[in-house]
Amino acid sequence: MRTVTKISQVRAIISSARHRGQQVGLVPTMGGLHAGHLSLIEAARANDDLVAISIFVNPTQFGPREDYEEYPRELAQDAQLAEQAGVDIIFAPSVEEMYPQGFSTYVEVEELTAGLCGGYRPGHLRGVTTIVAKLLNIIQPHVAYFGEKDYQQLVVIKRIVTDLNMPVEIVGLPTVREPDGLALSSRNQYLNADERQAAPLLYQALTAGAELVRKGAAGPEAAEHIRQMLDGEPLFRVQYVEAVHPETLQSVPYSGPPMVIAAAVYLGDTRLIDNIKMEEGNNNA
Amino acid sequence: MRTVTKISQVRAIISSARHRGQQVGLVPTMGGLHAGHLSLIEAARANDDLVAISIFVNPTQFGPREDYEEYPRELAQDAQLAEQAGVDIIFAPSVEEMYPQGFSTYVEVEELTAGLCGGYRPGHLRGVTTIVAKLLNIIQPHVAYFGEKDYQQLVVIKRIVTDLNMPVEIVGLPTVREPDGLALSSRNQYLNADERQAAPLLYQALTAGAELVRKGAAGPEAAEHIRQMLDGEPLFRVQYVEAVHPETLQSVPYSGPPMVIAAAVYLGDTRLIDNIKMEEGNNNA
Repeated sequence: MRTVTKISQVRAIISSARHRGQQVGLVPTMGGLHAGHLSLIEAARANDDLVAISIFVNPTQFGPREDYEEYPRELAQDAQLAEQAGVDIIFAPSVEEMYPQGFSTYVEVEELTAGLCGGYRPGHLRGVTTIVAKLLNIIQPHVAYFGEKDYQQLVVIKRIVTDLNMPVEIVGLPTVREPDGLALSSRNQYLNADERQAAPLLYQALTAGAELVRKGAAGPEAAEHIRQMLDGEPLFRVQYVEAVHPETLQSVPYSGPPMVIAAAVYLGDTRLIDNIKMEEGNNNA
Repeated sequence: MRTVTKISQVRAIISSARHRGQQVGLVPTMGGLHAGHLSLIEAARANDDLVAISIFVNPTQFGPREDYEEYPRELAQDAQLAEQAGVDIIFAPSVEEMYPQGFSTYVEVEELTAGLCGGYRPGHLRGVTTIVAKLLNIIQPHVAYFGEKDYQQLVVIKRIVTDLNMPVEIVGLPTVREPDGLALSSRNQYLNADERQAAPLLYQALTAGAELVRKGAAGPEAAEHIRQMLDGEPLFRVQYVEAVHPETLQSVPYSGPPMVIAAAVYLGDTRLIDNIKMEEGNNNA
């Protein structure tokens, strides 16, 4: 495994792999690797000849009062995990490498970014789509892998790839969870013991909401039930609970799938998100 | 020469050319081909193995009261000119092919787009950068060619390619002019006889302004002189005259190069733009 920090280096490696006819898979990350990332790497390993991951804590997707400074940066440990998982190349650029002076271009998606996290984190998804466009242009993978935990992010990334005709396939993979149901996130390490103990309620509440939908409840009704469950735990502060269409991300008034129920909560200063997707023809949560 | 209308068709042709090791050049156009376009095609023909042009009147770069409907569409004549000029492929998609339902992604440049045409045509440059990003992703040329007549457009396109790490070289080529100095433009055919006769004053005024700069005048002084010359012709309505830095496009208070003097005027309903670039170490207009 090689770790490179320069765009020109990673381009040279990938370009020669492509010339040899190798299929390239990319897992973009901000580091703090956990089993969720590893499941993406595993999928790439099974599907592609060369597996690259990027590790870059992207400043443009953090708001001014968010956790950019605190975000876990543990490259040595990440590199060890990546190597064990069969990664071939880590691309870990500096902020200056990715955003040199004069940088002023953004990739922006309208409509899909108005609600959910986009409504509460202005500029966040623009930062995500911009860095993902850059990484896809730098690495030029055949396939790129993202987790469904960041559901809106996944939909928005698929949108930019379709709309800008980027020559890459985007694969979304299921959220990986702790045994108690908590979705894996690099931010889970911010939680203190009490918060960690309370945290699984987020997924429990979403599961209960999905169960209601399965029994015939409409989206808003399920969302209200979830909100009430979360409000019952004093450590939680709910930011949003929404039942939306899986593709348009518009709030759904109807009952039954297709539907994604998504929520964001604060546990102390830590913001956690999670979601359950119910597909058509399979309304089990 | 082949003319194709589908993204999948042009991709298949270009992809097989690239696999054969051919270098691909692209000249993006909105049709209405004139000697300016032909000079770009000629440069591509001299430099690249396969020359593609796109012909697409891009709706997202026209404002609501602009000339999208009237813009020249003369594919048969354009195809004839292109074939004579040695073009290998014309990509002439429909609006639906480029902007299918659900389209909602835009590539946007900040700062550079605030002044000049960007200040008077809100959304215009965003439409340009979005369609150019799409065309570059669809055709994946090694080199793409643009005229310097649309100077701000050229700077902004170089910016998106740099900022988004797009794997393509952008080449800007000098404005081609009529014998009387009028910059070639597909919009010149809108001019009636009186307007056509008055039109060369735009370049004459810019040339006089550049001459003043060469003699030591500061940017704003030269711009004021140009504006007065243009205001002396009753058929002209000046939109802007600006002396700016060639890279930042910021107004320059200083005298001497590097400087671009750019202007936009209306002649009746027809909007014309032109510019003169004075490079460092070469302050001749």
